[in-house]
Amino acid sequence: MKVDLIFSANEIQSKDAKDKTVVVIDTLRASSTIITALARGCRKVIPVSEIKVARRLSGKFKGNSLLAGERQGTKIEGFDLGNSPRDYISKKVRDKVIILTTTNGTKCFEPLTEAKKILVASLLNIEQVSTELKSKKEVLFCCAGVVGQFALDDFITAGKILAELITEVEVNLSDRALVAYQTYVQNENNIVTILKRSKSGKNLIELGKEDDIDYIVKEQENYLPYYEDGEIK
Amino acid sequence: MKVDLIFSANEIQSKDAKDKTVVVIDTLRASSTIITALARGCRKVIPVSEIKVARRLSGKFKGNSLLAGERQGTKIEGFDLGNSPRDYISKKVRDKVIILTTTNGTKCFEPLTEAKKILVASLLNIEQVSTELKSKKEVLFCCAGVVGQFALDDFITAGKILAELITEVEVNLSDRALVAYQTYVQNENNIVTILKRSKSGKNLIELGKEDDIDYIVKEQENYLPYYEDGEIK
Repeated sequence: MKVDLIFSANEIQSKDAKDKTVVVIDTLRASSTIITALARGCRKVIPVSEIKVARRLSGKFKGNSLLAGERQGTKIEGFDLGNSPRDYISKKVRDKVIILTTTNGTKCFEPLTEAKKILVASLLNIEQVSTELKSKKEVLFCCAGVVGQFALDDFITAGKILAELITEVEVNLSDRALVAYQTYVQNENNIVTILKRSKSGKNLIELGKEDDIDYIVKEQENYLPYYEDGEIK
Repeated sequence: MKVDLIFSANEIQSKDAKDKTVVVIDTLRASSTIITALARGCRKVIPVSEIKVARRLSGKFKGNSLLAGERQGTKIEGFDLGNSPRDYISKKVRDKVIILTTTNGTKCFEPLTEAKKILVASLLNIEQVSTELKSKKEVLFCCAGVVGQFALDDFITAGKILAELITEVEVNLSDRALVAYQTYVQNENNIVTILKRSKSGKNLIELGKEDDIDYIVKEQENYLPYYEDGEIK
């Protein structure tokens, strides 16, 4: 298996994804939110970049949709849900269509039109992603980052998936993927601490969302979302 | 000291460097070549992006200049020197002006107009760079990369400089700088091997330039170049 990695959303170019299995990662927090919502029974998540597009789209679902998303980490005014995965409880999200707009995570999908398959990963579904990837030939990790720039949480997530894969299949890592793998290995026993010191972690702590970090690092959700034709299921 | 890092030349934006001490790194090989040339007595190095600009400029120096550079790792036809630092011996370069054009390394300087000071580093001059940086408040490492993309050799060089600094001053690392530091620490006893397996390393081995890697990792040159007004001294 050949593995490459994109450091942040700003870098993603359509040709990089061509014919590859792409894994989109925004651990703190969009991909964790998506995984949790789907694991709790939501019908699908529609990621959009703009708030006004989200509002317009919600009109189409006649009460069966929820508007969700954040700007600068805070719930958008008038929306049903923010971006804190722990708010996505079954009672709220079951059978609903969630229209999600976030600063970082949702922008990743748009340039991936040439990908073979697009999966959504975070620390919450390492086992599901690793199992799916085992049989693939070319894999590209797309780390979303914070405001389009590198973020440690996404990078360590990619590294953890690689650590699982390396025990089972032969992998040929690009320089970037190698560094992700090594970064995970070096921090393996210390993930919560290092993520709380990272840029995304500090942002969440400032917003009073430190518990999200504990949930995302310590829990597992049995769901592997994939993105197709503008929707995540 | 606050430390940030840019992964590759393609990413560098003028605002990132504003009022910072910037360290340009293209270990395999432009910055190693520049350090070696200056340590061997060359008067100055003028980095240019285009071959035709290099040729035009050399006319101005009436025989006191040398044309140097590579494309795809190979010396440019009609040029005096390629990009292999070991070719820059005193006998050839002493008192000469070297006009250097390379694929990766020379492109870094152009967007750095707002920097406070611009240093040139590689594994060859770790001690000189670290000593100079100790008193600085804001440092930005600009890794050149290979064809504008991330390269392990530059990243590990930044990490090694950080490892020196961390023993002597208090540093506040961005997520990217932290990963560079950890990557160096993890590979500290194994630098030659890992660089020979990296993308830049493999390129050099294919070109028959494996000895350059050994020279750059194992030797030290007592020179700290800095860039100002289009020239490196």
